[in-house]
Amino acid sequence: MDYQEILNNILASVEPLRSEGKQATYIPALAMVNPDHCGIALRTLAGECYAVGDANVRFSLQSISKVFALALALHLEGDNVWTRMGKEPSGAAFNSLIQLELEHGIPRNPFINAGAIVISDILVEHLPQPENRFIEFVRALSACPSVGYNYAVALSEKKQAFLNTAIANLLKHHNNLHGDIDRVLQFYFLMCSIEMSCAELAQAFLPFANHLVPFDYDGVTLTGSQVKRMNAIMQTCGFYDEAGEFSYLVGLPGKSGVGGGIAAIYPERYAVAVWSPRLNSKGNSVAGMKALELLTTLTAESIF
Amino acid sequence: MDYQEILNNILASVEPLRSEGKQATYIPALAMVNPDHCGIALRTLAGECYAVGDANVRFSLQSISKVFALALALHLEGDNVWTRMGKEPSGAAFNSLIQLELEHGIPRNPFINAGAIVISDILVEHLPQPENRFIEFVRALSACPSVGYNYAVALSEKKQAFLNTAIANLLKHHNNLHGDIDRVLQFYFLMCSIEMSCAELAQAFLPFANHLVPFDYDGVTLTGSQVKRMNAIMQTCGFYDEAGEFSYLVGLPGKSGVGGGIAAIYPERYAVAVWSPRLNSKGNSVAGMKALELLTTLTAESIF
Amino acid sequence: MDYQEILNNILASVEPLRSEGKQATYIPALAMVNPDHCGIALRTLAGECYAVGDANVRFSLQSISKVFALALALHLEGDNVWTRMGKEPSGAAFNSLIQLELEHGIPRNPFINAGAIVISDILVEHLPQPENRFIEFVRALSACPSVGYNYAVALSEKKQAFLNTAIANLLKHHNNLHGDIDRVLQFYFLMCSIEMSCAELAQAFLPFANHLVPFDYDGVTLTGSQVKRMNAIMQTCGFYDEAGEFSYLVGLPGKSGVGGGIAAIYPERYAVAVWSPRLNSKGNSVAGMKALELLTTLTAESIF
Amino acid sequence: MDYQEILNNILASVEPLRSEGKQATYIPALAMVNPDHCGIALRTLAGECYAVGDANVRFSLQSISKVFALALALHLEGDNVWTRMGKEPSGAAFNSLIQLELEHGIPRNPFINAGAIVISDILVEHLPQPENRFIEFVRALSACPSVGYNYAVALSEKKQAFLNTAIANLLKHHNNLHGDIDRVLQFYFLMCSIEMSCAELAQAFLPFANHLVPFDYDGVTLTGSQVKRMNAIMQTCGFYDEAGEFSYLVGLPGKSGVGGGIAAIYPERYAVAVWSPRLNSKGNSVAGMKALELLTTLTAESIF
Repeated sequence: MDYQEILNNILASVEPLRSEGKQATYIPALAMVNPDHCGIALRTLAGECYAVGDANVRFSLQSISKVFALALALHLEGDNVWTRMGKEPSGAAFNSLIQLELEHGIPRNPFINAGAIVISDILVEHLPQPENRFIEFVRALSACPSVGYNYAVALSEKKQAFLNTAIANLLKHHNNLHGDIDRVLQFYFLMCSIEMSCAELAQAFLPFANHLVPFDYDGVTLTGSQVKRMNAIMQTCGFYDEAGEFSYLVGLPGKSGVGGGIAAIYPERYAVAVWSPRLNSKGNSVAGMKALELLTTLTAESIF
Repeated sequence: MDYQEILNNILASVEPLRSEGKQATYIPALAMVNPDHCGIALRTLAGECYAVGDANVRFSLQSISKVFALALALHLEGDNVWTRMGKEPSGAAFNSLIQLELEHGIPRNPFINAGAIVISDILVEHLPQPENRFIEFVRALSACPSVGYNYAVALSEKKQAFLNTAIANLLKHHNNLHGDIDRVLQFYFLMCSIEMSCAELAQAFLPFANHLVPFDYDGVTLTGSQVKRMNAIMQTCGFYDEAGEFSYLVGLPGKSGVGGGIAAIYPERYAVAVWSPRLNSKGNSVAGMKALELLTTLTAESIF
Repeated sequence: MDYQEILNNILASVEPLRSEGKQATYIPALAMVNPDHCGIALRTLAGECYAVGDANVRFSLQSISKVFALALALHLEGDNVWTRMGKEPSGAAFNSLIQLELEHGIPRNPFINAGAIVISDILVEHLPQPENRFIEFVRALSACPSVGYNYAVALSEKKQAFLNTAIANLLKHHNNLHGDIDRVLQFYFLMCSIEMSCAELAQAFLPFANHLVPFDYDGVTLTGSQVKRMNAIMQTCGFYDEAGEFSYLVGLPGKSGVGGGIAAIYPERYAVAVWSPRLNSKGNSVAGMKALELLTTLTAESIF
Repeated sequence: MDYQEILNNILASVEPLRSEGKQATYIPALAMVNPDHCGIALRTLAGECYAVGDANVRFSLQSISKVFALALALHLEGDNVWTRMGKEPSGAAFNSLIQLELEHGIPRNPFINAGAIVISDILVEHLPQPENRFIEFVRALSACPSVGYNYAVALSEKKQAFLNTAIANLLKHHNNLHGDIDRVLQFYFLMCSIEMSCAELAQAFLPFANHLVPFDYDGVTLTGSQVKRMNAIMQTCGFYDEAGEFSYLVGLPGKSGVGGGIAAIYPERYAVAVWSPRLNSKGNSVAGMKALELLTTLTAESIF
């Protein structure tokens, strides 16, 4: 059975799950997306591309963008990044303030909101035009010059961003946010608003599957070791407080977003992206998680 | 550079780290072990065995035994195990009561103490002679009939076991411990008291590196999928609240113990065991973690 | 309107509340008490005694006994008591382990379970026959030689005492319980099992209303300042995590128990005891709290 | 010994304590106050006034103002206030976000920052010119038309107000802050910036000692029962996480502020104000707490 056949089977199998779960509504602009979409795309290092369903419809990456932001921050600061945050799973909701207060403003990892806001702070601090630099990097990664921000989504999120504003203020209180709060959050919301299709997202994650060739996209360079370690962080922290479940069921490093997308990597083989907007109670796509579980089951390919 | 050469280099490199950290003393019998030991053993699926340093000196497995206990419980109960505990990283110390109270007596995973006590309860409930059954299974895994419990260590731990007794009582309060508390803890302490050398431990973990051949040891059977999923849990939960750091630095699933041992797996290739008794503040062997980091760096072999 | 008339009115007013709330059932022997009882007794320093309803039916004091235990410990150890616990409201449930772990085995105050277990440890440590000494003291306070322990209730509680056993073990782990855990808990359960009627309980609390005359009961002596400070602790910590509500509604220092009793004090005037077994979600008697609120409203007598 | 003599003695006794503790510095403008000040003023319902030390030097009320704000909110909304916050001691630091997140945006009481910000929201919502209305009310209470805001202090606090801004955003997230965040915080900081001398502050608290005469100041009216209940809240919640200690040592309802002031009440007798800027680790004036402890010890007058 080849990948295309497997993807076809998966799409058929997750069909009944499309209607399970609940679309994210806390960002009003996201609530208007048709929640019935479902798509999968898989790209191999060998250059093959497989796709089913709505694999060419763009959706809001949301937290998936945090992977690109971390890559850019590691390029700029290297291991200094880890003086400002940890790399441990949080064991708590992605937007919780409790752990951040108990741990004196040091976020647990770069993929919870607090960590990604610190990463945004790093980018805003280093780069003269962070929004431009970031989107050019992401365009290079995805090999797609038409990828861009959705300003309406960013603005919509900003209007309801009380929790993220609370987090940013708590970080500032602990001297772990150097820039202006509004400026940093502006970047953060834009970063999360990027839209891609599954096909584009699979392409954008492919470089993280390939630690053996030099990572160099629009001048953003990482070592093979850095690429592998980003996978390690995705594995332990990529799925909010469901990282263990995902690791158990799927066995691939990856990152999910509340837009309903999930990107995952099979190192030295492929990158895969799925999208289905309805989420489980942890904020991960119901059909998306099942699709990836079926993928590693049917291919018998996982990192373990 | 072959594995033996690499192990030789690693032993030389971690030499200065042997004296860093602090040996566990809360179990008095463990405090009497010479803390200067250091050994490494690596066994491949192809049947090769490499060893350096004190690789043939036995030490107390402690939490490493929880992997064997989970395997036996999964054999007996399958996925029913997960009705009584989660598979998420805890983000907290291995002996904390806080999360257990907040989450109503459902341990986060089978590798924190609370989870391993529930696993012990399952084994005591199912098996007429759990201590016998368990050690026979472990002997089969390690291909070493002389492996056994250290009753003095178990007794020594029992005398100071106030935290574990508190955990067991809290579990009982939430109806998540069915058996008699003293009986279950007796098994738990014995299970943790098993002694092996690095060479024996590497052998005992080798079956978990090999999901492609049937897992059947002394009648304990697991499917390939179950074996892979045990690796997933080791990856996200195997190192207390340092699982992310280990995943980042080493990139292999594994399990550590406060005796100073660490066992890890490179799926489809090898199992490796290191031992050095001095621990960092998280309870993991200082020299042991460094040794494994060097192993995956020098071999460029990790799961990511 | 004199006190008798007021008590009559109160009993009539709280009549419909008798059936609200839920009797404590976690101690099986307490679950067998008829939950429809309701009684009030009030004794003045001038020697008057007023009573209505079931004021002469004995009930299980439970946590109310902690006041007597604290008095005896203060007599024995004076301010040394406060090296082993605080005097702050806990802001948490009376049987929670979370705060105790976070605060390294130092209970917040002597009226949550953890604190009362440490008080029990002090008494067991100091007294050759703590059960005898304690009951003699309580008999002297209540001027009633027939007051005694209910061994069946103590035994019944012991059998389900997983949470309190967890607390005692956590205290022991932090070196804040010196004696044998079982011995200390045995005393603790007996202490809580004392039975009195409202009339007897009002008498037993009267000495705490009277800091101007020497406190000396069966040789247990306290200074006027110590008596006043016990009132202060009752005011801030006497009602679990509902101390603020009781202070707001009633405005008297006091102590409640899960048997449905409440004793309270109007310094330099009177002591009052109420009993009605059905409890609100915080563990305090529904009709009892209302009765005391009516008492201070109708008499316009509160400490504020 | 009359009150004046007692105050003289107290001032002499606390002299060595003036240099203990640390002045609050998180509000830069407050850090410039001479920390050696110490003053006490006591006013009786009978109209007597006693004072020692720097009793006529004005200082920043900070959290003490929260008492006046609560009085105004109770006048405007009555018991509806309690639908938006509790009246329980928090058992945590005054600026903690943890409890607020766990309890879904409902502050524990009106005297922690979160509660006082909700009170500010109520005042801003109800009053066309809340700053004017509030200061007129406070001038009437203190019988001193020259009392006013210190705009420099308010501005200074605002610039560093990351924690309070985080709190306000978390409240807003939970729909427990109706107005504009910046507008509400502007009022909050001004409210806290009011300056009074001990003599003026004792006058301003005197009405709360007097529940028997109608409370009516500049049209702000409260019932006697409301006045008493405000005392109850001061008793259990007035001293951050040191309310139990203050109740134990002093035995009077009161409220402290990080400017180093404390106001307290002996119902039906007097109001007292002390000021000494150096604070203990809980944020309460070291010399001030000792002075009040001596006052109730030397006069043998406390509520218990």
